[in-house]
Amino acid sequence: MGGTKIRAAIVSSKGKMIARKYCLTLADEGPESVINRILLAIDHLLSQSNIESSKLGSISIAAAGAIDFVKGVVATSPNLPGWHDIPLRDIVREKHGVNTFLINDADAAALGEQHFGAGKGVKNLVLLTLGTGIGGGIIINGKLYTGLHGSAAEIGHMTIDVNGLKCNCGNIGCLETLASGTAVAREAIRRIGQGEKSSLTQIVEGKIENITAEDVSLAAQGGDSLALAVILKAATYLGVGMVNLVNIFSPEMIIVGGGMAKMGDLLLEPARQVVKERACLLLARGVRIVTAQLGDDAGVLGAAVFARQQLSSKS
Amino acid sequence: MGGTKIRAAIVSSKGKMIARKYCLTLADEGPESVINRILLAIDHLLSQSNIESSKLGSISIAAAGAIDFVKGVVATSPNLPGWHDIPLRDIVREKHGVNTFLINDADAAALGEQHFGAGKGVKNLVLLTLGTGIGGGIIINGKLYTGLHGSAAEIGHMTIDVNGLKCNCGNIGCLETLASGTAVAREAIRRIGQGEKSSLTQIVEGKIENITAEDVSLAAQGGDSLALAVILKAATYLGVGMVNLVNIFSPEMIIVGGGMAKMGDLLLEPARQVVKERACLLLARGVRIVTAQLGDDAGVLGAAVFARQQLSSKS
Repeated sequence: MGGTKIRAAIVSSKGKMIARKYCLTLADEGPESVINRILLAIDHLLSQSNIESSKLGSISIAAAGAIDFVKGVVATSPNLPGWHDIPLRDIVREKHGVNTFLINDADAAALGEQHFGAGKGVKNLVLLTLGTGIGGGIIINGKLYTGLHGSAAEIGHMTIDVNGLKCNCGNIGCLETLASGTAVAREAIRRIGQGEKSSLTQIVEGKIENITAEDVSLAAQGGDSLALAVILKAATYLGVGMVNLVNIFSPEMIIVGGGMAKMGDLLLEPARQVVKERACLLLARGVRIVTAQLGDDAGVLGAAVFARQQLSSKS
Repeated sequence: MGGTKIRAAIVSSKGKMIARKYCLTLADEGPESVINRILLAIDHLLSQSNIESSKLGSISIAAAGAIDFVKGVVATSPNLPGWHDIPLRDIVREKHGVNTFLINDADAAALGEQHFGAGKGVKNLVLLTLGTGIGGGIIINGKLYTGLHGSAAEIGHMTIDVNGLKCNCGNIGCLETLASGTAVAREAIRRIGQGEKSSLTQIVEGKIENITAEDVSLAAQGGDSLALAVILKAATYLGVGMVNLVNIFSPEMIIVGGGMAKMGDLLLEPARQVVKERACLLLARGVRIVTAQLGDDAGVLGAAVFARQQLSSKS
């Protein structure tokens, strides 16, 4: 469940998707309505594939936001209005009576990519999801790192500009304020608002406040110099964030997923350059910085992996 | 082995120090001379306690700098001139013929504090050593996290001010440039140089370029307002670094060691305040920010713990 879409699937023990369902979150309608859509999606999958819920190994939910894994609660979620301490895990468990798990969506994506995507066989990796915000997932020694409450890796909320803008999260100068899709759109709007010329003005038919990161990416691919400069700036900040991750974790791999990953090397190459120039030499040696491979399936597949790991560690 | 001192000990399997030896590093004399002092310290300990080296379970060396654990090499060390790719582990092993290990000093301190000090029984913690520089050690699920090459956790070299000063490490605006002992001394010298009044001028008998972080601490304890302001500023930056650690790791505990830890709550209380105000609520819940308990013994004891863990994981 993300701020925009709900994706659901029945996944086999080998990671094959047996049935899929997709719907809009319509987060503005509030938690009750969203929860209903989640329950309907599950019902739809079960009837579509003619499976009873008692035959499921488990139900695993990956949700955007701060997740208290131990309590099975969505503590808060910046893009889901009204979600405060919602016991989503138990609501779903009570209806279906099978083992149910709740984790953070970027954590799930990290597990998905590690098992079936860009990070196959990699023991230590960090995944960043670059979209409206910036999420993160950390795999250490082959396992998801969850910290004290089960929702660590808020990598987007690491300060890299101590004199920077206040972030929605309450912190200052977070990576998210400088390198997210929102930051890219904001910067393009600001510069065009100051009178700079760009093909973006035509793309959004003069409504420059409607510019999105996707528009900026499109314009950049068409050679628009303002769009290219805005992406380069975000990519440089992204690189600074990656330097921090390399100096702290010395991971084998950093995977970039989320909508902005579609920019590919336009975004990653300047970031790699910053890592090469600034990170501690020994720690950066061998680190691969790559785009995610599973797209929107990473979260669903990763949630399934997580459930399987939890069940096998119990037994 | 640090930039200033070499501390050596024979440690029992229960963490008791049977014999101790202390000498100066005299790093300016270069690697060969320092290595000789390390070998002499070992010889001294053995003869002092009437033990043959064949009776040692292992020799474990904790050294300042970037350590390639796999190769047993000191890759670089900012405070040890001339140390580049020195195979310290094998030099010591060849002389004594027992299992020999080499790790980073802050990593060793983290293990020491986790086993015998402030972090006893804590499974996920981050240790920061605040001295001339800022080092770090990370314990995850009860184990030292070493990353791809065995020397992760360069927490002092995380950018928190992307528009800040260039750091010795090559990165920009590192925590170390803002919150280390060196940063504290530099800031005091800068402000007094601009004509501000402070009791520090008397403490160093007018030679303001000689001011150290210890002097600033002394002056602050005496109520000197410039010294208090300088420490508050460093403590605030330290807090920003801790916010990043909390948002990334959600650890149970952050331990502050190194010379500056002696400032105690003068340093830690403002840092705690920043964490309270800025870190993600869920992730900061329950985190304890405390000073180290073992002082200069943390590294020696932690090195012994590390060797024991390595040997038991082999067998």
